[in-house]
Amino acid sequence: MLKFSGQFLAVLLIFPGLAHAFEPFQVLPESPPIPHDNPQSDAKIALGKMLFFDRRLSVNGSLSCNSCHDLTRGGADFRSVSIGATGIAGRRSAPTLWNVAYQTVLYWDGRAASLEQALASHFTDETVMAMPSKQAVVTAIKRVAGYEDYFARSFNGQVVSYENINRALASFIRSLKTPNSAFDKYLAGNKQALSSSARRGFTTFVDSGCASCHFWVNLSGPVPGLAFEMGEGFYELFPNYPGTADESRYHLADDLGRYMITDEATDRRMWRVPVLRNIALTAPYFHNGSVATMEDAIRVMARTQLNKDFNDKQVADIAAFLQTLTGKFPDLIIPRVP
Amino acid sequence: MLKFSGQFLAVLLIFPGLAHAFEPFQVLPESPPIPHDNPQSDAKIALGKMLFFDRRLSVNGSLSCNSCHDLTRGGADFRSVSIGATGIAGRRSAPTLWNVAYQTVLYWDGRAASLEQALASHFTDETVMAMPSKQAVVTAIKRVAGYEDYFARSFNGQVVSYENINRALASFIRSLKTPNSAFDKYLAGNKQALSSSARRGFTTFVDSGCASCHFWVNLSGPVPGLAFEMGEGFYELFPNYPGTADESRYHLADDLGRYMITDEATDRRMWRVPVLRNIALTAPYFHNGSVATMEDAIRVMARTQLNKDFNDKQVADIAAFLQTLTGKFPDLIIPRVP
Repeated sequence: MLKFSGQFLAVLLIFPGLAHAFEPFQVLPESPPIPHDNPQSDAKIALGKMLFFDRRLSVNGSLSCNSCHDLTRGGADFRSVSIGATGIAGRRSAPTLWNVAYQTVLYWDGRAASLEQALASHFTDETVMAMPSKQAVVTAIKRVAGYEDYFARSFNGQVVSYENINRALASFIRSLKTPNSAFDKYLAGNKQALSSSARRGFTTFVDSGCASCHFWVNLSGPVPGLAFEMGEGFYELFPNYPGTADESRYHLADDLGRYMITDEATDRRMWRVPVLRNIALTAPYFHNGSVATMEDAIRVMARTQLNKDFNDKQVADIAAFLQTLTGKFPDLIIPRVP
Repeated sequence: MLKFSGQFLAVLLIFPGLAHAFEPFQVLPESPPIPHDNPQSDAKIALGKMLFFDRRLSVNGSLSCNSCHDLTRGGADFRSVSIGATGIAGRRSAPTLWNVAYQTVLYWDGRAASLEQALASHFTDETVMAMPSKQAVVTAIKRVAGYEDYFARSFNGQVVSYENINRALASFIRSLKTPNSAFDKYLAGNKQALSSSARRGFTTFVDSGCASCHFWVNLSGPVPGLAFEMGEGFYELFPNYPGTADESRYHLADDLGRYMITDEATDRRMWRVPVLRNIALTAPYFHNGSVATMEDAIRVMARTQLNKDFNDKQVADIAAFLQTLTGKFPDLIIPRVP
């Protein structure tokens, strides 16, 4: 995988060939990238929605995907780290699933190159669904007589399989988009869509360097098909300025991030830049969910990443800007699982 | 509270005054009884739906009402007994909430005389939401800025209070109705709505004595305003024939039921007769969730309550009949919690 850090935005702006196709902030595209081997269909999305809410996918029937990635709000939960089916806490905070299909890698450490891959590793994770095996997942779904038809309809007559369970879930998650945020309207030309405070916040966000990493579609860096392909992660060092009071107070440096999976020294405390769309709805913040409010998260980011101290007005303005990233959520009907 | 047991149906049929108003099975009425101090309104139902899905009502943000009373299916969960926010298992199986508003008492032991009262005792129960106090519940909701307006709109300008949280939730739960089951259509005159197997099952159900307790709107005995008022429970002894192999195998007599709260000897192993509407969707069965399938539950009931052994055909027919109690579920849009 390629690795990028630091002033990616500046690099793009310097190289005109890249810059030509590049607008640093973009309206949410209508469709995220769809893998060739898992095309979207209404049937498959509907099946994925059932599975997303079906607690039988956890070892003891206590947890569904929606337990931690709660679609009644930001697509995450209210906890610092989620608690798995058997009561074991996860290591990192559940990220939002809204618009996650526009990300090039999944997980905080970018260890999954696709949604399908990310999903496949949730089921047997003892901190999540805690299933004893992939086969146990398939068996749990096969035991429900009603599912067979839905799978056949979604996968050209194919039966229930681990791959197809994850494909259906991925298709549903790819449908989770929140377009038409105030910021999208602003980008589309309606300058009144942002309050004067939010506009000041946006200016500070760009000028002070937040946008060096938080740019493009999800304000989380490159999107698939534009500079990056799926599987190529956009990582940043966090904390970038080590030894701050925030670092010890919020335990920001305890987790070594991407290093934990690559074992490469240059990956120590490297993290996939997270999605900022709907960030106002996904407190608490950071990989360990250690910071409770958006305002504090803004202050911590300024100090640890930019070595800056924002004043209260700057913080309020940036918070007002981040509020404009809350999109329009679709009306989802609660599925009836078979 | 009044107590009834045994051949209530027979009693009603003997007294013409009561029998006049009495049809042993009834189409689901359009509206359940609504208490005078908590009238239904669209605003209140919408607020109740938000609260129902809001995990902040549990001590650690891990559990919402929907975690155990899962509306994606039967309004219960897939577990024998539910697991509370902190991992402590409850003592009894979560009952369905669909059509529960037609019940005269709530909980398996009937200890709550209204939905509001039942709800109020969930929050500080260590096996459910595990909140430290009622005040903590109010604080959790007050902390969410967005809720204040919804409460004001739902309760004539009143603020967030414990009573109003429970009123809003109760109003939402009163909206959870599943009319138009095949059995409702059959009762309304469409004799073809039941298969021949289901019709045979219905006949066996009545003739063998199941209907002595499982009659009327929810096939769970008297409904509010008709013979019983809210708070008057309809209880039966279970197991009725003690000492069966089922009793020890499924631990049916371990829990002393209503006796646990009244301390009256006549209440030993007395249980509120449970709702049979949508029973096909609410496995596992009984107060301790000890029996996995409807077929086995039918066999156990016949042996422990009626001292009868149904043959396989009778069991299949009764199961076919019980399947016809699955109603039409409304399309509920997943709320957006503030």
